[in-house]
Amino acid sequence: MRYKITIEYDGTNLLGWQKQTEGFTVQGYVESAIEKFSHKTVEIVGAGRTDTGVHATHQVAHFDLDTTLSPFRIMGAINAHLQNLKAPVSILEIQEVDDDFHARFSAIMRGYIYKISNRRSPLILDNKRKWQVGYPLDIEKMQIGANYLIGQHDFSSFRGAGCQALSPIKSIENITINKTGDDIDIIIVAKSFLYHQVRNIVGTLKAVGEGRFTPEDIKTILENKDRTKAGATAPAHGLYLNKVEY
Amino acid sequence: MRYKITIEYDGTNLLGWQKQTEGFTVQGYVESAIEKFSHKTVEIVGAGRTDTGVHATHQVAHFDLDTTLSPFRIMGAINAHLQNLKAPVSILEIQEVDDDFHARFSAIMRGYIYKISNRRSPLILDNKRKWQVGYPLDIEKMQIGANYLIGQHDFSSFRGAGCQALSPIKSIENITINKTGDDIDIIIVAKSFLYHQVRNIVGTLKAVGEGRFTPEDIKTILENKDRTKAGATAPAHGLYLNKVEY
Repeated sequence: MRYKITIEYDGTNLLGWQKQTEGFTVQGYVESAIEKFSHKTVEIVGAGRTDTGVHATHQVAHFDLDTTLSPFRIMGAINAHLQNLKAPVSILEIQEVDDDFHARFSAIMRGYIYKISNRRSPLILDNKRKWQVGYPLDIEKMQIGANYLIGQHDFSSFRGAGCQALSPIKSIENITINKTGDDIDIIIVAKSFLYHQVRNIVGTLKAVGEGRFTPEDIKTILENKDRTKAGATAPAHGLYLNKVEY
Repeated sequence: MRYKITIEYDGTNLLGWQKQTEGFTVQGYVESAIEKFSHKTVEIVGAGRTDTGVHATHQVAHFDLDTTLSPFRIMGAINAHLQNLKAPVSILEIQEVDDDFHARFSAIMRGYIYKISNRRSPLILDNKRKWQVGYPLDIEKMQIGANYLIGQHDFSSFRGAGCQALSPIKSIENITINKTGDDIDIIIVAKSFLYHQVRNIVGTLKAVGEGRFTPEDIKTILENKDRTKAGATAPAHGLYLNKVEY
């Protein structure tokens, strides 16, 4: 039987989603937890391979397991073993799915939220949960700049070194920038992303918010297809994989 | 010159507000930080003496200091030294005030937020930031129960052992219960509170939400003036001092 699970994690002390030969990862923790109660080796497949330090409120994964346990019991067992392992990972939902469901290939849309705290004082309650930016950001300009990125483009200027995608052409469905008090949320939705694409976009939009780029510069940066022309990569700890649609 | 400061802290690893002979406290950290740059011993007075494990988004305090530094520079210096001390404490605002301003005695209203995450899965991103309650809570019943507590009453049933207040009579301005997704926020506003009053109220309202008490039982519990008749004390880590008005 194939199961779809929804996962929350705090990426702070993790080497990201994908299992490594050494160090803690989300995939490694969840596979260990399943093995602990089922005594079976399973491979879990995630919708998005988040990087070191990146969080998820709703990552999605699937795995196959032969068991007489109900989905509710499986989720309880995984969570109990994740707690025993002191993993910063929790399973929020579980569902039986058809064998042709694939967490990665069946996904039609992925949503990320990037959280900025636009204040001078060091972050305490949101430490390692948001990017602290002291200089006041103009979110209207950021939104105007962001609008140039919506739609299908060659995103070479926002593509991280080491990206394994075959093509730099991606299609961004939407970028929405919301401000509540000091908090700025940048919500980016697309079918799929290039390596570091979200963090490179956020770093560039932050430069627009500071006035170092004009909103119209985004259009030029995009057209240049040159990573060195865009802004710096925003830090991992502000980024959350927030939603995967099937 | 007297200064009013607004303070954020993560209470998880603190023994609360008030300085102790051993262990880390908010008062101890802020006084140390001020001493580090001013080379003067100051006493800071807080609006509310929060307990071990309780957080603050906006605690208020005052202190007197002779210095030629601008308030902006003082705040920067305190924050820099708090960071050096690795204190989970940050100064959000600073303001020069009249000598008759008193953070504790001039306060006319204090607001606390108690955060519950009403879900079965272990908390990860909100670990030590909310109280995880697995059983689904009926917030409409909780609000009806809470309404019996609004106004002036003898709160002996909600008064923690060791409370030093002269009288158990307090006046609650408002209790508002909001739900967004799995998150339930209980906002309680009063001029002042008894020891553990907010946490005892929250523990009792949770029992109403679970159906162990009826909303009307709150009226009886209040009238009984007996701590043993009310619900258990809610854990410290869901509580935030959120607002102090002058």
